[in-house]
Amino acid sequence: MAIQVREIGSFHIGGGQVTLSGLPRRSLVLTRGMPARDFSGDGDFESGQMYAQYVRLEVPRAKYPLLMWHGGGMTGATWETKPDGAPGWQSWFLNAGHDVFVSDAVERGRAGWSRFPEIYPGEPHFRSKIESWGLFRFGPPGSYETRTGHPDGLFPLEHFDQFSKQVVPRWACNDALTQAAYDAYVQKVGPCVVMTHSQSGQFGFNAALRAPDLVRAVVTLEPSGAPDPRTADVVALRSVPHLAVLGDHIDSFWQDIIARLRHYFEAIRTAGGVADVIDLPALGIRGNSHFPMMDRNSDQVAALVQDWMARQGLMR
Amino acid sequence: MAIQVREIGSFHIGGGQVTLSGLPRRSLVLTRGMPARDFSGDGDFESGQMYAQYVRLEVPRAKYPLLMWHGGGMTGATWETKPDGAPGWQSWFLNAGHDVFVSDAVERGRAGWSRFPEIYPGEPHFRSKIESWGLFRFGPPGSYETRTGHPDGLFPLEHFDQFSKQVVPRWACNDALTQAAYDAYVQKVGPCVVMTHSQSGQFGFNAALRAPDLVRAVVTLEPSGAPDPRTADVVALRSVPHLAVLGDHIDSFWQDIIARLRHYFEAIRTAGGVADVIDLPALGIRGNSHFPMMDRNSDQVAALVQDWMARQGLMR
Repeated sequence: MAIQVREIGSFHIGGGQVTLSGLPRRSLVLTRGMPARDFSGDGDFESGQMYAQYVRLEVPRAKYPLLMWHGGGMTGATWETKPDGAPGWQSWFLNAGHDVFVSDAVERGRAGWSRFPEIYPGEPHFRSKIESWGLFRFGPPGSYETRTGHPDGLFPLEHFDQFSKQVVPRWACNDALTQAAYDAYVQKVGPCVVMTHSQSGQFGFNAALRAPDLVRAVVTLEPSGAPDPRTADVVALRSVPHLAVLGDHIDSFWQDIIARLRHYFEAIRTAGGVADVIDLPALGIRGNSHFPMMDRNSDQVAALVQDWMARQGLMR
Repeated sequence: MAIQVREIGSFHIGGGQVTLSGLPRRSLVLTRGMPARDFSGDGDFESGQMYAQYVRLEVPRAKYPLLMWHGGGMTGATWETKPDGAPGWQSWFLNAGHDVFVSDAVERGRAGWSRFPEIYPGEPHFRSKIESWGLFRFGPPGSYETRTGHPDGLFPLEHFDQFSKQVVPRWACNDALTQAAYDAYVQKVGPCVVMTHSQSGQFGFNAALRAPDLVRAVVTLEPSGAPDPRTADVVALRSVPHLAVLGDHIDSFWQDIIARLRHYFEAIRTAGGVADVIDLPALGIRGNSHFPMMDRNSDQVAALVQDWMARQGLMR
């Protein structure tokens, strides 16, 4: 059935002008066959912005736009067509009646990135395939070389190279810039539901703490960190329901992270808020990776999230 | 009126695995509050891929999908919402009945980019605001500092900083990789119309020469180069109509480029093909910049292109 779309558009938000001087000039041929030209490294540049693309429905059934925030070393492509070619969560949640916004954080994708070390203080990190394989729990230790995953694994490993084409360089020094852009993004969009994954988990939690009037709910897939409840004003989150979704084959690295998450969620509940966890293996759903939105059962997991959102009164 | 959308999706295409070794290890904190971890610079990486996003209509009125290719230092955002917030050509041509594909070339946007100098042989170029201002003919020489444009200029200069947020780093050494990915993209999509801008002009001309059975027409906005007709098989283009659109305030830099374009187009016509030029000032439409799809009269220019496409039999 056709999706009735009112508007497709995009914008950049956040950041500002940075001026560089004292850099060398370079001679470059920018178009083959044309003469070389002399370019200055100096000048004014925009830096610190992020990118967001939206699809607004003619008649949304959700009360608020759904903002999808990708994880580390990734872009908004995370939420689009899956590496196996099947529809991803952007499509699923559009069909479920949400206006869907898919963004690229500062330094990623269409957000662009800035000169280092002049603007970003450090060098980028390029995630190798073996690092993805282990970090995202696509297979047990030592299985990258043979490309054999967990026997019950749901990530479509025959499309692992296609997945790897989505991976982009990232920095480890831009958290403050990234948070500032996400905060400006929430201010621009207004009342919204924020859905995060992995690295963006922290940015989403912080965005809710800074704008609990605008962030009406937080859904997070395996966030890679959580605020310290001793310093976070969790009382402000009493009207901001939180949901975390956890996959299978949790190893010691992720166990530590999830312990922090559970600690944070407990503090929200103690303050009178809603902070639920969908622990997929505990529900008998085995084999999800760190990317449940790309796993073979992504529709099933999406439906669990949608049910939770409906129960929180987020649908019309 | 709502756009009836059959499918929104995306994919990466082209490139392949590159393996690096001998790089140093680094210790990084990837999520604030978590311990530092030790990362290898070595490993297998995907490189050379590009990214494409598509919006397919329930009932397209165009015979073929329209592939929009951005220029140098830009991403697919070129074609989306304009810097002034008004709808861009992605929306315009969707409303005109085309399935629209918007892509990010190799090294740009969601395509990702690769380590240099290990994979890309050179350093990236960061385009400054003053360079954009002059190259894109937003104002006469010396006018960047005062931000005063041409008296009749149609680029919304009050949104020049917003435009500058779209600018991303580029390399000057990746033409072969980029062309290979575009060629693979055309093979994947099948029969299509290619719309190019500036740097992508050359890639589009070459794509048509390599796949004249699939590229059913080429529309190019101020291409920054054109093939040499002495070596290009223009006879193969007899069934591939070409259209170029030229803006105003052409300076000597662009004059040289346009002379090459006209030479190439003349060869196509001599071979029996269609190669038309919409020279906007010659039609009495004054003040367009290098970015007619972002100028205030972008709808007017789009309508001229659409009329040409209809006359070429590209609509149902």
